[in-house]
Amino acid sequence: MTGVRVAGVGLTPFGEHAGRTGRDLFAEAALSALDDAGVPSEDVEHLNYGNFMGALAERQGHQAPIMAEAAGLGCAATRYEEACASAGVAVREAVRAVRSGEADVLVAGGQERMTNLSTAEVTESLAVAADELFEVRAGVTFPGAYALMARAYFEAYGGSREDLAEIAVKNHANAVPNEYAQYQREITVERALDSPEVASPLHLFDACPITDGASAVVLVSEEYATERNLDAPVAITGTGQGGDRAALQDRAHMARTPAAADAAAEAYADAGVAADAVEVAEVHDCFTIAEVLATESLGLFEPGEGIGAARRGDTARDGDVPVNLSGGLKAKGHPVGATGGSQIAEMTRLLRGDHPNSDAVTDATVGVTHNAGGTVASAVVHVLEVAR
Amino acid sequence: MTGVRVAGVGLTPFGEHAGRTGRDLFAEAALSALDDAGVPSEDVEHLNYGNFMGALAERQGHQAPIMAEAAGLGCAATRYEEACASAGVAVREAVRAVRSGEADVLVAGGQERMTNLSTAEVTESLAVAADELFEVRAGVTFPGAYALMARAYFEAYGGSREDLAEIAVKNHANAVPNEYAQYQREITVERALDSPEVASPLHLFDACPITDGASAVVLVSEEYATERNLDAPVAITGTGQGGDRAALQDRAHMARTPAAADAAAEAYADAGVAADAVEVAEVHDCFTIAEVLATESLGLFEPGEGIGAARRGDTARDGDVPVNLSGGLKAKGHPVGATGGSQIAEMTRLLRGDHPNSDAVTDATVGVTHNAGGTVASAVVHVLEVAR
Repeated sequence: MTGVRVAGVGLTPFGEHAGRTGRDLFAEAALSALDDAGVPSEDVEHLNYGNFMGALAERQGHQAPIMAEAAGLGCAATRYEEACASAGVAVREAVRAVRSGEADVLVAGGQERMTNLSTAEVTESLAVAADELFEVRAGVTFPGAYALMARAYFEAYGGSREDLAEIAVKNHANAVPNEYAQYQREITVERALDSPEVASPLHLFDACPITDGASAVVLVSEEYATERNLDAPVAITGTGQGGDRAALQDRAHMARTPAAADAAAEAYADAGVAADAVEVAEVHDCFTIAEVLATESLGLFEPGEGIGAARRGDTARDGDVPVNLSGGLKAKGHPVGATGGSQIAEMTRLLRGDHPNSDAVTDATVGVTHNAGGTVASAVVHVLEVAR
Repeated sequence: MTGVRVAGVGLTPFGEHAGRTGRDLFAEAALSALDDAGVPSEDVEHLNYGNFMGALAERQGHQAPIMAEAAGLGCAATRYEEACASAGVAVREAVRAVRSGEADVLVAGGQERMTNLSTAEVTESLAVAADELFEVRAGVTFPGAYALMARAYFEAYGGSREDLAEIAVKNHANAVPNEYAQYQREITVERALDSPEVASPLHLFDACPITDGASAVVLVSEEYATERNLDAPVAITGTGQGGDRAALQDRAHMARTPAAADAAAEAYADAGVAADAVEVAEVHDCFTIAEVLATESLGLFEPGEGIGAARRGDTARDGDVPVNLSGGLKAKGHPVGATGGSQIAEMTRLLRGDHPNSDAVTDATVGVTHNAGGTVASAVVHVLEVAR
């Protein structure tokens, strides 16, 4: 089984791109990734593309061939949809295609247009990722669902709004130097606490923003990287995927996300690393509480201990395991179908040393990414390592 | 590389399922496939699921974990969206997962709810599979696009409305004994010709209907089939996928579908068979002209000769290569996201001898399926063989 290298990464700035189309955004990311990789577009054998709500936001489904065309790729293309984990699945399947020998070069990533819709339309469109029969009809959209998870967490393990606000503050601080981040500005705990309540205990600054953007990575076999003498020091060494019942009410524990724990266990076993080897993580903090649940599911902390670890600063820039040095979904932004690819791109930059926050993890060789769909009804985890 | 067997197949009746949900339909198909296979649901390692317009038709995206739950599967699940070829891609990726050793048992298939929408809503929702910027905004929806393809074909190669009507008549006749078909009734050439014009030269009876339905197949490794002593005589020996520019206007030839030709070439090479070895085919006849283009792209006939072959009866039940013995999309129905899986299910039944039309192909050992997205901007082809 061949190894898989990240040969190049490409991102659009995350934020509001009024007047640009989804295909325009994805082409920018894909061309940027190919340029970063030094791989000619004619070598690309397949496009693995993630998108969630294009049929609603741009009346454009069947986006895979359209994105291949926009990016100037002559290859076939496949769209993956796993809600907010769409690009994570696209990357995972690209890893598997390289390993199995089906292809030596793939582009994987995703794209989402969201700011062209009204806030109400976005909330309704995102709710399509929840269980329509058993959640949405009862009025449960994602802010409410994650609020229930936060309440369940507080009741089971303790924790406070202040603890969650600290996570938002941390991720905003991390985003300041990130040229792709939607919010390159700091916030204070006070401002987060004083922001409008969305669904108790969550306030506005506990939530990620509405974002347009695209991500792409070029994945190649080790043989191809060697033959072409590519500078591709980062390998994807582990991949895992998990699933769970969609409706929160059907879970055994509302403050646990076993789909992510399953994905992490699979990814760690695949890579042959233990959770305690992880030195840096990019996790799916669509809400601040989600970052806590993610760090626990990844095995960085025991269940119930993630909030204390965050409070102590273990996940801060200078902590044991910096989490979301990119700024995370919270401050970098969350163009839904692009996020899983963005995490791979950011982790690659962090590990190879050209991320504005790479100085926080200069000796790190093992990173992990955590991408989740819905209230973690689906999850994808990847292990990235600096190849020795 | 291990071989892949179709251990079991499951279908809902295709047609109008008022009052039933998509998850209900898919669960029926998946449970039926598992029952047919004699495979316990706890052995299923992944669900590969195709759906096209669920976010529009049922306001339900993120359907993969929901469908896994509905079918009683405890595994992770992935949704593939490639317009009308969604389930074809889902099957293809399942074949590759078995071959690479990632899994021994997968369920693959798809589902679509359509009749709960008005006809105008369905037309608009299907148009999401066309190029929104360069086709739909100009008023081109699929009946118009395929009408353009038919006109281009007639101009380049000849042919007539009568020729196309004969294809509809053939497929309706094939559907009569098929218990899963939406239209188990014959039509006449006269009735087809007299049906209302939709987009010249296509009339209503040149088009497939609006359909609810689901399909599922259980794919297993040869090793698993042998160990469990499964009765699974049909193998998927070849898989191929192709892509093309989405907008019809950008194609070199409007009466050619090179994405399907590429997919066929890849599938034949993969299986190690030539096109002239194919004894029976299920093809994507969303419109009658599409069947002609499909048979040419599959290499069953040279470009321009498909219509003459159809006229001569080469694709009829008693012809050299019977096409769409299931009734095809035209008469069996076309629940978009389910169709690619339905083709695999029908071909499996035909080859193993338990299809109501198996008597037309009693000695056949090689069959091919052709599933297309949009105006064949994407295509998936599979070769199925009776294992010797």
